[in-house]
Amino acid sequence: MSAFEFHLDAADPTTSGRAGRWVTPHGVVDTPAFMPVGTLATVKGLLPAQLREAGAQMVLANTYHLALRPGSEIVAEMGGLHRFMDWQGPILTDSGGFQVFSLAQMRKMTDEKVVFKSHIDGSTLELSPERAIEIQEQLGADVMMCLDECPPSGESIEKIRVAVDRTTRWAWRCRDAQKRSDQALFGIVQGGIHPAMRQRSAEALLPIDFPGYAVGGLSVGEAPELMYQTLDCTVPILPANKPRYLMGVGRPEDIVEAVTRGIDMFDCVMPTRNGRNAMAFTSTGPVRLRNAVHQRDESPLDAECECTACTRFSRAYLRHLFVAKEMLGPILLSLHNVAFYQRLVRGLRKAIVAGNLAEHRAALLARWGSAV
Amino acid sequence: MSAFEFHLDAADPTTSGRAGRWVTPHGVVDTPAFMPVGTLATVKGLLPAQLREAGAQMVLANTYHLALRPGSEIVAEMGGLHRFMDWQGPILTDSGGFQVFSLAQMRKMTDEKVVFKSHIDGSTLELSPERAIEIQEQLGADVMMCLDECPPSGESIEKIRVAVDRTTRWAWRCRDAQKRSDQALFGIVQGGIHPAMRQRSAEALLPIDFPGYAVGGLSVGEAPELMYQTLDCTVPILPANKPRYLMGVGRPEDIVEAVTRGIDMFDCVMPTRNGRNAMAFTSTGPVRLRNAVHQRDESPLDAECECTACTRFSRAYLRHLFVAKEMLGPILLSLHNVAFYQRLVRGLRKAIVAGNLAEHRAALLARWGSAV
Repeated sequence: MSAFEFHLDAADPTTSGRAGRWVTPHGVVDTPAFMPVGTLATVKGLLPAQLREAGAQMVLANTYHLALRPGSEIVAEMGGLHRFMDWQGPILTDSGGFQVFSLAQMRKMTDEKVVFKSHIDGSTLELSPERAIEIQEQLGADVMMCLDECPPSGESIEKIRVAVDRTTRWAWRCRDAQKRSDQALFGIVQGGIHPAMRQRSAEALLPIDFPGYAVGGLSVGEAPELMYQTLDCTVPILPANKPRYLMGVGRPEDIVEAVTRGIDMFDCVMPTRNGRNAMAFTSTGPVRLRNAVHQRDESPLDAECECTACTRFSRAYLRHLFVAKEMLGPILLSLHNVAFYQRLVRGLRKAIVAGNLAEHRAALLARWGSAV
Repeated sequence: MSAFEFHLDAADPTTSGRAGRWVTPHGVVDTPAFMPVGTLATVKGLLPAQLREAGAQMVLANTYHLALRPGSEIVAEMGGLHRFMDWQGPILTDSGGFQVFSLAQMRKMTDEKVVFKSHIDGSTLELSPERAIEIQEQLGADVMMCLDECPPSGESIEKIRVAVDRTTRWAWRCRDAQKRSDQALFGIVQGGIHPAMRQRSAEALLPIDFPGYAVGGLSVGEAPELMYQTLDCTVPILPANKPRYLMGVGRPEDIVEAVTRGIDMFDCVMPTRNGRNAMAFTSTGPVRLRNAVHQRDESPLDAECECTACTRFSRAYLRHLFVAKEMLGPILLSLHNVAFYQRLVRGLRKAIVAGNLAEHRAALLARWGSAV
């Protein structure tokens, strides 16, 4: 696993924020890092060159979706995910577990495996720790994730404990199933919002000595404060010298809060999904572009942003595109929102290096207002 | 109108094909030229930089659609069409007449004006030659088109004659209504597929001395041979020293046939519309990317094409995007098809300059097969 090296460049003096440089087989990732989500081997509406231009260094792709379409064997035959989607930077694939629990019609889960029906055509499929690794090795991303059990928000502590212990057993099996040495396999800490369960999960996974640890099972419906409290009790247990990844998060202020708590990596569909729905993140808070107030507004969406949407077009034009249901609206707003998230994490990193993350955090939240 | 100059660089020795350089206020257009269609001030799914990269020099926008959304006054307030859509090259706007006749629910047409209902919200609107010019001056394209009456395919010769004569009267009124001197106003020859009517129309418009002439009312359902025959009898009547524009055409072989008959400019939604529907034009004929034959095809869509779709991705990936209903599929195929059309007209121009258009035409048609 020498292809991966995680260097900590700076630690913020008054928060747990840290700035890192993470070397992967497909390039360096500056942390804190945000990965745009390319579910089906494409970040919706954006070309790889546009992602690069927006500042993205690493993207995420979804194992469950790619296993169904086009199939991991086909991706492998086509030279792997990097070549297939023409993203030459690092890629992370999730394990598929989250979608099996949230999207598929589940039939049966045992300790051995989960048998479920495809949400596409209802065909019966199964996923085990070994199969999750096999698929992810076919996809060939730089980072693979262990298959975990992700219980719904608000599940009883007893069921959380069962899920945590199964996640631990599956983590060992994933580790044992890994054949390729050019991919990093991350463990996933579960445990819902229960500090004792988070501790149980983290401490059980540490002996496996994964090259990185994720915090899973958050941002699944719980209040933001509960997520932050859970990070407060979980992150300190994770190894300081390895990347820490908060899965599926989140809103800009969630990212700020998690970075101050020592998280290094994020992924979320929000920039692209909201962008497709005419909602833009800006330096001064969210902007809904369908709003009539933008009809004759010649000003840029965000004067501080250097993306194509902000430097070439007016709010009036962007609004027009959405009102007229033109594809270019979702494209430009996805591009802008990805650029916004990248600028956000770059700014957080800079503040950590400068040692003023707390002030930077306060300034950001004040500008965004309370309703981001 | 000194901002416009049309230079003929070469005439093909064995066909009526000609190669020109057309100077406009927003840059030079090499002819034969193909204008991608940006109906609502956006060529669907493509950024201006991508159009440039594909080789497009001039685009078309639709007056009727823009008058309804966002409204020509708003476009004018936002600095005109070039600034609004960030296309710094030349733009042509149609008059809106074609859509009034094809799309709107028409209520009443008199010699004075046509009163119709919007296809968006059913509101009552009207278009007269004066209003068509007023709207187009607000939009501010380099080239405006006269309001014409475009009868349906197969209309009786009596009704065609009425439409031709009304189109002539409206052409004079459009000319008289024009206030701006930085826009070129083109006349439109109508007359259906009747040589006598085409002659009647062309000869009536010539005294107005427009800086360019369009052939309208073709590609509206008639057989291709009838279109070519109509061009055979119409184009020779048009002034040789002015650009000739065949409106709304067409398939690649239609463009080849029309260029050999002396047409200089084209527009058509086909490259983008077909692209959105997974149909690609290639050097060796049309390719339908949803076809299962492409599932494991690592080869490029068109090995002779230098566009992003062809140089960065495999057919397997492009097919996957369409099967998975991903936006990037329509984007990439629109980009490719626009690049294909631009390469087509560049190749035709080169053949004219080399004096071998007939051979080039035969070679193209042979490669495309009979089923383009």
